[in-house]
Amino acid sequence: MLSLEDSPLARDGKILILAYDHGLEHGPSDFTEHPERMAPETVFDVATHDAVTSVAVQKGLAEGYYPSYEDDVSLLTKLNGTSNLWMGEPDSAVNCTVDYAADIGADAVGFTLYGGSNSEIEMAEEFRDAQEAAREHDIPMVMWSYPRGQGLRNASDADTIAYAAREALELGADVAKVKSPGSREAMEHTVQAAGGENGAKVVMSGGSKVSDEAFLKNVKAVMDAGGAGLAVGRNIWQRENPTQLLDALEAVIHEGRSVDAALS
Amino acid sequence: MLSLEDSPLARDGKILILAYDHGLEHGPSDFTEHPERMAPETVFDVATHDAVTSVAVQKGLAEGYYPSYEDDVSLLTKLNGTSNLWMGEPDSAVNCTVDYAADIGADAVGFTLYGGSNSEIEMAEEFRDAQEAAREHDIPMVMWSYPRGQGLRNASDADTIAYAAREALELGADVAKVKSPGSREAMEHTVQAAGGENGAKVVMSGGSKVSDEAFLKNVKAVMDAGGAGLAVGRNIWQRENPTQLLDALEAVIHEGRSVDAALS
Amino acid sequence: MLSLEDSPLARDGKILILAYDHGLEHGPSDFTEHPERMAPETVFDVATHDAVTSVAVQKGLAEGYYPSYEDDVSLLTKLNGTSNLWMGEPDSAVNCTVDYAADIGADAVGFTLYGGSNSEIEMAEEFRDAQEAAREHDIPMVMWSYPRGQGLRNASDADTIAYAAREALELGADVAKVKSPGSREAMEHTVQAAGGENGAKVVMSGGSKVSDEAFLKNVKAVMDAGGAGLAVGRNIWQRENPTQLLDALEAVIHEGRSVDAALS
Amino acid sequence: MLSLEDSPLARDGKILILAYDHGLEHGPSDFTEHPERMAPETVFDVATHDAVTSVAVQKGLAEGYYPSYEDDVSLLTKLNGTSNLWMGEPDSAVNCTVDYAADIGADAVGFTLYGGSNSEIEMAEEFRDAQEAAREHDIPMVMWSYPRGQGLRNASDADTIAYAAREALELGADVAKVKSPGSREAMEHTVQAAGGENGAKVVMSGGSKVSDEAFLKNVKAVMDAGGAGLAVGRNIWQRENPTQLLDALEAVIHEGRSVDAALS
Amino acid sequence: MLSLEDSPLARDGKILILAYDHGLEHGPSDFTEHPERMAPETVFDVATHDAVTSVAVQKGLAEGYYPSYEDDVSLLTKLNGTSNLWMGEPDSAVNCTVDYAADIGADAVGFTLYGGSNSEIEMAEEFRDAQEAAREHDIPMVMWSYPRGQGLRNASDADTIAYAAREALELGADVAKVKSPGSREAMEHTVQAAGGENGAKVVMSGGSKVSDEAFLKNVKAVMDAGGAGLAVGRNIWQRENPTQLLDALEAVIHEGRSVDAALS
Repeated sequence: MLSLEDSPLARDGKILILAYDHGLEHGPSDFTEHPERMAPETVFDVATHDAVTSVAVQKGLAEGYYPSYEDDVSLLTKLNGTSNLWMGEPDSAVNCTVDYAADIGADAVGFTLYGGSNSEIEMAEEFRDAQEAAREHDIPMVMWSYPRGQGLRNASDADTIAYAAREALELGADVAKVKSPGSREAMEHTVQAAGGENGAKVVMSGGSKVSDEAFLKNVKAVMDAGGAGLAVGRNIWQRENPTQLLDALEAVIHEGRSVDAALS
Repeated sequence: MLSLEDSPLARDGKILILAYDHGLEHGPSDFTEHPERMAPETVFDVATHDAVTSVAVQKGLAEGYYPSYEDDVSLLTKLNGTSNLWMGEPDSAVNCTVDYAADIGADAVGFTLYGGSNSEIEMAEEFRDAQEAAREHDIPMVMWSYPRGQGLRNASDADTIAYAAREALELGADVAKVKSPGSREAMEHTVQAAGGENGAKVVMSGGSKVSDEAFLKNVKAVMDAGGAGLAVGRNIWQRENPTQLLDALEAVIHEGRSVDAALS
Repeated sequence: MLSLEDSPLARDGKILILAYDHGLEHGPSDFTEHPERMAPETVFDVATHDAVTSVAVQKGLAEGYYPSYEDDVSLLTKLNGTSNLWMGEPDSAVNCTVDYAADIGADAVGFTLYGGSNSEIEMAEEFRDAQEAAREHDIPMVMWSYPRGQGLRNASDADTIAYAAREALELGADVAKVKSPGSREAMEHTVQAAGGENGAKVVMSGGSKVSDEAFLKNVKAVMDAGGAGLAVGRNIWQRENPTQLLDALEAVIHEGRSVDAALS
Repeated sequence: MLSLEDSPLARDGKILILAYDHGLEHGPSDFTEHPERMAPETVFDVATHDAVTSVAVQKGLAEGYYPSYEDDVSLLTKLNGTSNLWMGEPDSAVNCTVDYAADIGADAVGFTLYGGSNSEIEMAEEFRDAQEAAREHDIPMVMWSYPRGQGLRNASDADTIAYAAREALELGADVAKVKSPGSREAMEHTVQAAGGENGAKVVMSGGSKVSDEAFLKNVKAVMDAGGAGLAVGRNIWQRENPTQLLDALEAVIHEGRSVDAALS
Repeated sequence: MLSLEDSPLARDGKILILAYDHGLEHGPSDFTEHPERMAPETVFDVATHDAVTSVAVQKGLAEGYYPSYEDDVSLLTKLNGTSNLWMGEPDSAVNCTVDYAADIGADAVGFTLYGGSNSEIEMAEEFRDAQEAAREHDIPMVMWSYPRGQGLRNASDADTIAYAAREALELGADVAKVKSPGSREAMEHTVQAAGGENGAKVVMSGGSKVSDEAFLKNVKAVMDAGGAGLAVGRNIWQRENPTQLLDALEAVIHEGRSVDAALS
């Protein structure tokens, strides 16, 4: 496994990925409240904040906008993804090869796996190809490990999330991006399932927009549980003032401070 | 993303694609009123009009007829397409590789994606291969982004069309060819969804034949909304006198004139 | 598109293909009346008649029998085909690659496309590979363009046959082999749909055995309509005396004579 | 087509294949009566009898046991095959590539085609790859041509067996291994369907165990009908004393003697 | 077939594989009783016991943890595997190529085949690719031969297990990992089905946790029946004190001692 210490994906082993692939996954409706955020430049600008270690986008945004920001933030190219017009079993088209991602300057790559979907096996084999190619390029691989589909009773269940983290470890991801399992204890279990210190690093995905305090407490719990950080999208760029929350995330994730200290 | 300024697909950043792939997609019945237009030469002749920046055809027409016109118009080879005898979920056979398109002189390539179809994921992966190969050849990629199939409530809905434009941007198309969403405001939203100035250029597809004035007003709205131009087929070559309308399109698209001025 | 003038598939631009792939497509029952014709030598002997420009066979017959006839007739290797034991949607296995066909001396290759079948898209993509490989070898490509399957109301309908010819043109075939649409007018429409003089050449397929006069009149109509010739199988080798009819076809196809003249 | 005269698969153009792939196709239950025959050595020993020209086994047996017998019998590596635990439409996994078969010393290769199965087209395309690779290695190809599945009314029907032989010829097999059609006349028809002297050689498959005389009469009929020989499995190695029957087969197949002479 | 005598997978021809792929196949719930065993280091530590000849893990664990143990135990990289969130027909994603396994230091590779599953044919063909690649790298191939799915009446039936062992032999595995058929006689039959001394070596899989004595008696029966050893997972690392049982396995498997002697 790659050392994240030496990777542009992390800073001192801590990770804050700003995810901006909602244009593909959810479509323009995600930008209804802040229509200016539909313009990639506005979100790449947000990503230049010191707290952010990486911006995660699909190939098209990487090609069109990243060149102007390459000195300010590292690039995580998402390799698969699908519009929500798709009505089949959970699945995700591989929109970018690792070779091409490397060509356009990706510092890391990301891949979604829907464990429990009827597409799980096909996706795992596509992941294999991507993971082995990423190793050849010495690029870290982040798995969006999201159980979903016919095999799932409850995708937000703490056991399912721990299983998702383990699947990322077993299949060779460097980082497992998982949903929040809800409590610090559950997050500790998830971090252990991912193999602990020598295993896959765990980052919590931000989910839908909540209050600052609720959000930061959740992030703090992740860090205290041994998680490596956060991947956040709508909780940042759907806010009026993303900088404020990013300052607080800088304090909690990178400086190890309390939520109260971060908020003041 | 390729700069369209330097591409033969556009002239000063404005695009007028004359589409002539109806022989495959609709069959000879599209030529019932003007049977002479079934002969490719008659339409390639039309394409020599100054207003036209590119002619879009399937491989067979490119091979057989384009060599005589290569000094007069640039060639956009459509890579996929299917007869309407096909009764399955919306899908499109990949009839031409990018390497072959380059061999036969394509200045640009085109690819249909039916977002929301049961074939969306497979088509997106075929698009990936084509897009990355097109980058290697430095050939611009135009996506016919047409949501269609089981995932669609309303394919002509403005939100769906904006999503289609965004999908083209996210997947790495240089140009998004979309249906008209009906109003200038909706087209502006679509152009923004495609990433604006630094994103994918948006061209409206012409659709079925309407009156000159109605058609030109629609085109004017596209240009005013920041669109790059038009892809037109039947509205041109199903007309008695295509030259007249092309003169008007020259005025509206390339010279930025009003519909009234263009019509007089 | 390749020039047929320089191709061994045609003689002065006229084509008479003797098709002998019935052993695979229909099985031994096609030889019930003339069992000796099951022996490939007997039909290759027929193919040495001057009127015949090409003999169309599957790979196995090409390998086993053509070497003795290579000075007398050109070889059209059929690339796909399936036994009639197959009960699925119309489809055709690709039994021979173009590279291999070239290795065993093919002067031309043939490929069946069942437009409207549930297999149409897959077949069109297999055709693409074959067509592009054939171009590399400078070997002409003949499409057996036979709409068939769930998308078809009436496969013998003149509009369907014209569409089949157009599909061959659009996908890059040099020759479209289609069913007879029944009248000279319909055949003219079909020839125009295939792109006319600079497009795909049209050859009528012979179909089941009919009387000499009926058959020749049909062929004459094809030639008068601008067709390039005929592909004939059972109408020749299921006859007692194939030479007689071949003499007549020589007159009608290659010498442009009337049916009456040809029959006397 | 390869000349069998020069091939280790045959001796003076006559073939006796000892088939021993029942361990995969039927499982250990085929060895219930003679459990020692489950040990490959016992059957390879039988294969050293002069009458046997080739032993047909799956890759694993070829790798593990053939090296000790390579001076005594030629090796026919079966390329596909499936356990009878499989409950889907008749199909057969490709367990060995031709390149690998050549690496481990195969003198010939074998391939099953289930004409009429829903898998027929896929199998035919796998056969194509194997056949063309075999040609490159100058290794003869034997087709186990066994119509089976939803397309079949009666797989033992003489017409079906003749069709199976023809399919082997058309697709480029050197030898067609078919079921016995029951009479000498039917076998003659089958041999003719396979193309006669210059076509695919026909070998009858031995089927279930029957009496010596019945079996030899059937074999004699095959030879008299122009067949090339026999592929036999259970009728040999399920016998108490295989040598006795092999002596008789030597007489009938290789020396052209009568059944009575062979039995005495 | 590779000689196991010279392979790091075995010691003097005896095999004890410590299997630790349960994190992927069963998820964190397998570690509920001994949560510290979820940490790969704790199990790799166990694997350094002299009795263990190989540790079997998925790619991710091999990458992350094996480097610290490479002097103490050989590495068997499992090539396929799937989470139990998967609800389709028994199947297993190929998560690692043989080339990559070799890159990360695998001394042997493992592959699951579910005979009788609707995925059997696809899995067998994936096995073929892996087996032939393993031969190129001179790495032994262990087949997890586990009949399962719609074709199975009873997967624990002695005949089915013998068939599973035979299938491993026929397809070219060096070692067949099978369930225990229950008696020494049945295990002898299984060892013979796998080809005996020159065939595939048979190792029994450990199954769920049972008492020490019951477990060792079963292992002893395997050794007495000519088996090569054991692949064990939960019966070791779900125990309070794995060393004790490993000492006993050392005695039974490697020193050929009785169960009583081993237990005292």
